[in-house]
Amino acid sequence: MINEIREDAYKIIRMSINEVLPEKAVQKALENKSFTGSVIVIAIGKAAWNMANAAKESLGSKIVKGLVVTKYEHSRGPIEGFEIIEAGHPIPDENSVIGAARALEMVKGLSSGDEVIFLISGGGSSIFEKPAHGITLEDIMDITNQLLSSGADIVEINTIRKHLSDVKGGRFAEQCLPAKVFSIVLSDVIGDRLDSIASGPAYPDSSTSVEALEIINKYKLKVKPNVIDTIKIETPKEITNTTTVITGSVTALCEAALKNAEILGYEVNLLTTTLDCEAKEAGKFLAAIAREANRNPKQKKPCAWIAGGETVVKIIGSGKGGRNQELALAAAIGIDGWKNTVIFSVGSDGTDGPTDAAGGMVDGETVRRIKSKNASPYQLLENNDSYHALSLSGDLIKTGSTGTNVNDLMMILFK
Amino acid sequence: MINEIREDAYKIIRMSINEVLPEKAVQKALENKSFTGSVIVIAIGKAAWNMANAAKESLGSKIVKGLVVTKYEHSRGPIEGFEIIEAGHPIPDENSVIGAARALEMVKGLSSGDEVIFLISGGGSSIFEKPAHGITLEDIMDITNQLLSSGADIVEINTIRKHLSDVKGGRFAEQCLPAKVFSIVLSDVIGDRLDSIASGPAYPDSSTSVEALEIINKYKLKVKPNVIDTIKIETPKEITNTTTVITGSVTALCEAALKNAEILGYEVNLLTTTLDCEAKEAGKFLAAIAREANRNPKQKKPCAWIAGGETVVKIIGSGKGGRNQELALAAAIGIDGWKNTVIFSVGSDGTDGPTDAAGGMVDGETVRRIKSKNASPYQLLENNDSYHALSLSGDLIKTGSTGTNVNDLMMILFK
Repeated sequence: MINEIREDAYKIIRMSINEVLPEKAVQKALENKSFTGSVIVIAIGKAAWNMANAAKESLGSKIVKGLVVTKYEHSRGPIEGFEIIEAGHPIPDENSVIGAARALEMVKGLSSGDEVIFLISGGGSSIFEKPAHGITLEDIMDITNQLLSSGADIVEINTIRKHLSDVKGGRFAEQCLPAKVFSIVLSDVIGDRLDSIASGPAYPDSSTSVEALEIINKYKLKVKPNVIDTIKIETPKEITNTTTVITGSVTALCEAALKNAEILGYEVNLLTTTLDCEAKEAGKFLAAIAREANRNPKQKKPCAWIAGGETVVKIIGSGKGGRNQELALAAAIGIDGWKNTVIFSVGSDGTDGPTDAAGGMVDGETVRRIKSKNASPYQLLENNDSYHALSLSGDLIKTGSTGTNVNDLMMILFK
Repeated sequence: MINEIREDAYKIIRMSINEVLPEKAVQKALENKSFTGSVIVIAIGKAAWNMANAAKESLGSKIVKGLVVTKYEHSRGPIEGFEIIEAGHPIPDENSVIGAARALEMVKGLSSGDEVIFLISGGGSSIFEKPAHGITLEDIMDITNQLLSSGADIVEINTIRKHLSDVKGGRFAEQCLPAKVFSIVLSDVIGDRLDSIASGPAYPDSSTSVEALEIINKYKLKVKPNVIDTIKIETPKEITNTTTVITGSVTALCEAALKNAEILGYEVNLLTTTLDCEAKEAGKFLAAIAREANRNPKQKKPCAWIAGGETVVKIIGSGKGGRNQELALAAAIGIDGWKNTVIFSVGSDGTDGPTDAAGGMVDGETVRRIKSKNASPYQLLENNDSYHALSLSGDLIKTGSTGTNVNDLMMILFK
């Protein structure tokens, strides 16, 4: 029985990740779309090559010219009619600036009948950057470093950076005018905040110059006068030429998992698509739900609970692991000895922390399997050594790089 | 609208706690029960007086004699035909031993037609204790202290203590023979493990002498030879004269909440009755579920999610609070700005940590209310100062002592 459930779980993982691959996301978005004028494709982010290639396959010669700006070693070869630039991530470099400048050149002088297909994926914030007039990349890096060492949060950092950029915070879309922008988004941001994904080059910025200046005061940052002057120039608060669709996201991943679990006969419950708590505690919470399913005689079987999001790990130990593996190990302890129950957590990009695993899939015998190898699951968890624990029990999920990145999928299956 | 939801929440809390009051628990258990021989009532634990009083009201003069052993200041006056002894909690004292000895005297010499009604509630492990032959209370305290300072867990501590006691681990029921024991349990133990509640005086012990001796070796405890001799005497593994009913427990509390929320028109989901993760992270998880309800157009309204259990707080700050208040504050941050959503966490005993509150009830405006008093909800949470935060926002739940103790109730309500 348990092997049957585990097979179901693997099927759901495979089928669901397939539905949020960049290629699928772009195909779906372009399905019923028709274009009259010239079509320019600008693709940025870690999945830019795959997204651009899918657009090329869908639209063929309708594309007049295209540009891919992606992370180093993320291009998979030439695409006809496309320039390809690889740039820095997670830290922007000169190529990031070259890529953004090239994109701005390409969208210059278009007419209102023309259309820019803008393909956005995670990492775009670093890979695609052009400092605003009078600002250098060094200025941006300097202020970012000051913010990081002052304990500023990511929202504060992005508020500053958007106001120092010529492409972030809606400014790229603005420069496409009078052409229209059709933006297709593969989201790696929990809750799909469009002004956060790749710092929202084609989305109205919700942060203001006033807020940015307050942050500078709050952390007593040392900045040159010209930085202040630039920050005072407001980012677009309204963008009229852009349509945005999110076709790949953790929400789509969860919905695919829901559909696929239903196909396999499970009664499904979607808990959340924005889980953001500690990995270990999320594992304990999921285990508590699983125990209840076991206990409750009214529970319909088979049944499944689905959660999407991105948990965090507090590293206190010296072990090896990732948030998905840590969640799974904590869940294993919580369902120790319970029958017919499987819990997994998996990163949709196929990687979890600095390991070769994508996550972990555990059951009521996982703890016993670890102990039988003379190891303590509790101590391994304490030491953030989930990779070691789950390799002992044979519970690592390994998918290899999937080519997409839409956060994590977590599930309980019970039969 | 939000006030309407908050009123619903208060109604659910009141009505649900009412259904798990000790009086109700005993009444329900005795409803269809008839007794032929003599009836002796022995009540132990923090709710012993209330439970005994309810038994007296149900059975009147059928009770030949009775005994209440409860915590200091927990007796509410004389009950006809009952002796009342108050004893130490959380540390047993001489009165704990006097109480247990008196109970054993009362059940001595009964015949097989007689019945002992044994009323158990939380705290019984300390309040009701008689060291085994040759062992002193000091021996027990000494070994307990050694275990605590060695980092032993509660299961290990109880394994030792059951083997050193004349009433724990099923030994009380054994000494009632040939009389029958009808045991009514108000459970404060997550998952209702009957050999754990009050250390299971009337339930077969699942721990063994061998395990107890292993624990002594593991932690290299210093014990007298007679302690070892006593531990070698096995606790009962089978008890034939006892029937046990759990009528008050967190499961009953959750089921009452479920029923009461349904009466108020909510579509309900029971997540778990055994939640045991960190309070703050549980709050974040519940907030993530609430956000999903808001986001999902398919979500039926009004709807509610219920969880029972007992979360834990990692104290790193110097503030004032309790697990329920900390959970609520973390949840408030997670639903900041969301409409028509209420999350609460409340201790069924009416107390939460060293405060005069029972828990917290928050909504999408809680964070704004705290900020409007020039305080930071994030910093207050960081400093474990949930009491201060929720008193600023007016979100403390205060019920006063309820007289019951069946862990905590947590809920999301969405309209």
